[in-house]
Amino acid sequence: MKTIEWFDGKVRYIDQTKLPLEEIFIETNDYRVMAADIKQLVIRGAPCIGVAAGFAVALGALEIQERERPRFLARLEEVAGEIKSTRPTAVNLFWGVERVMEVARVGVGVDQIKRSALAEAKRMAAEDEDICRRIGAHGSELIQDGFNILTHCNAGALACVDYGTALGVIRAAHEQGKKIHVFVDETRPLLQGARLTAFELTKAGIPMTLITDNMAGHIMRTRKVNCVVVGADRIAANGDTTNKIGTYSVSILAKEHGIPFYVAAPTSTIDLKIAKGDDIVIEERKEDEVTTIQGKRVAPFGVKVANPAFDFAPSKYVSAIITEHGVVRPPFEQGLRSVVSTANQAIRQARQSG
Amino acid sequence: MKTIEWFDGKVRYIDQTKLPLEEIFIETNDYRVMAADIKQLVIRGAPCIGVAAGFAVALGALEIQERERPRFLARLEEVAGEIKSTRPTAVNLFWGVERVMEVARVGVGVDQIKRSALAEAKRMAAEDEDICRRIGAHGSELIQDGFNILTHCNAGALACVDYGTALGVIRAAHEQGKKIHVFVDETRPLLQGARLTAFELTKAGIPMTLITDNMAGHIMRTRKVNCVVVGADRIAANGDTTNKIGTYSVSILAKEHGIPFYVAAPTSTIDLKIAKGDDIVIEERKEDEVTTIQGKRVAPFGVKVANPAFDFAPSKYVSAIITEHGVVRPPFEQGLRSVVSTANQAIRQARQSG
Repeated sequence: MKTIEWFDGKVRYIDQTKLPLEEIFIETNDYRVMAADIKQLVIRGAPCIGVAAGFAVALGALEIQERERPRFLARLEEVAGEIKSTRPTAVNLFWGVERVMEVARVGVGVDQIKRSALAEAKRMAAEDEDICRRIGAHGSELIQDGFNILTHCNAGALACVDYGTALGVIRAAHEQGKKIHVFVDETRPLLQGARLTAFELTKAGIPMTLITDNMAGHIMRTRKVNCVVVGADRIAANGDTTNKIGTYSVSILAKEHGIPFYVAAPTSTIDLKIAKGDDIVIEERKEDEVTTIQGKRVAPFGVKVANPAFDFAPSKYVSAIITEHGVVRPPFEQGLRSVVSTANQAIRQARQSG
Repeated sequence: MKTIEWFDGKVRYIDQTKLPLEEIFIETNDYRVMAADIKQLVIRGAPCIGVAAGFAVALGALEIQERERPRFLARLEEVAGEIKSTRPTAVNLFWGVERVMEVARVGVGVDQIKRSALAEAKRMAAEDEDICRRIGAHGSELIQDGFNILTHCNAGALACVDYGTALGVIRAAHEQGKKIHVFVDETRPLLQGARLTAFELTKAGIPMTLITDNMAGHIMRTRKVNCVVVGADRIAANGDTTNKIGTYSVSILAKEHGIPFYVAAPTSTIDLKIAKGDDIVIEERKEDEVTTIQGKRVAPFGVKVANPAFDFAPSKYVSAIITEHGVVRPPFEQGLRSVVSTANQAIRQARQSG
């Protein structure tokens, strides 16, 4: 079962807010439902959001009744804007919308645009799985037999269409027969580590230990942690890696203990237009994500809360960025430009070959 | 209302597991109830545990029916052992038991032992409040007007009889009219920051912002944090400071950002018999503290969990240790010995003057 896919004329995706206790799938042909679900983290994970954004634009295109091309496209641009407004940080959202819009803008007629928009979204979904397996293959070369790996948040199959980025690296190493063990940060406030990564690793039979976020330093000091692998929501041109809140602290703790810190992400997560991490907009989310947990109030009423959803690992603490087109090492600027260029060529070729 | 006190022939204390949503007080004259409540964190916080341990021994003494002094004392030593076995890390537990046992062992008859044991426990409770105010007075000299302070866990009135150690420093600065603001780590797994510290600061009208533990690094980088103040469960002779899990990470993050890291603790928390942090036994608690939050399951069933209740800030990252007998600066060895010696003299004098 994919995290998100085209199924019987609709988009089908798992409700990630209900995991791990309930596995509920949502089917819709309404892009507004998808936009709301991206906002509410029913759909989450940068690569998954990218594919979902593509499907949402395609659903928007299919629904528009205008028969005149300019009016149709004007309305589709509005839909694209609505989808883009859901979350500010993960660049894959904008990338996903733009990929389908690029195809739509060059379409010759309304019906052809509708067909090609959906075809592009489906292509993105298929590509995503392939990309994750290639990230896994490249990244697994960094993982040795017997490694203890620490990960933060969920950069797994649930953050993608399937397989995962950081967890793709871990899965690939496991599939190669390497004996590995994973320490999973629970990742407050929304517990993507405890709920989603623990769920995926357990299903895959990969040995793991769940820890609270504040145990990471102690675990690095007292247990042998050989490397950290995390995903990314947006990678700046200099390699600064924006990812789930707490990633910054983990990168400092890894540096303190001399542990390599690896980022695993598709090239669609690289934003060459952004020079450095400080230029990336950090989404501030609602207070009740901190003051309540699974509906249970844990803090006094009226208390003030900070809830930044992301922070970034400074490039100086990033040992390598693992992409589908290879492992990029510091200094990152040139290597990141190179893999993005390779990826853009691959997209053009895929469109031409249908 | 004190966190713990002698009231109407019984020990009365607040149930800290029910806060902040319910304020429930427990009254008992059974040391077994108190021992169980220390284990279950109904009573928690190193200084509070110390005073509770003293009261528990006194309750044990009052209850023993033996009239023959050697038999009475032998039974009381058993009671002391039971109380000491509740939690391994906070030295105040052993200190509290021993303070009352020292008085008991030199008592001349059973009735006199019973009276003096209770008197010693009451003296400890009274002292604790005075000690906290003196820690506050010393520590507040390190806090300037306009400071942003980060704290971890709860080292407040609830961790003591009243006023608090780390929060004593913060309260004293606030009472002096300094405009301060506190970032409160929620402190998983048991959320003492979100539940207890947020509760105390809100009640005291001290401005604060609640954050999840993994936000601490990001907050230090993006908001002006001027110092960290935490409590302690056991301070080794070299200044290594064992405290709630996550303290180690916070000390590294503070060092990374050039932020002073202060420990506020009574001299009863200093254990000169322990050379360094690595020699302190770290309590490992039950898995369900991590896999469930306030009774709500958050992780898949069957998942493996680590749950060390403490870690330690290495002395090299500790800027100062604030005690009731003054602020000790690195290197800590001599300064710690000096304040412990002063404290022991004060205890002897207090006993002599009744």
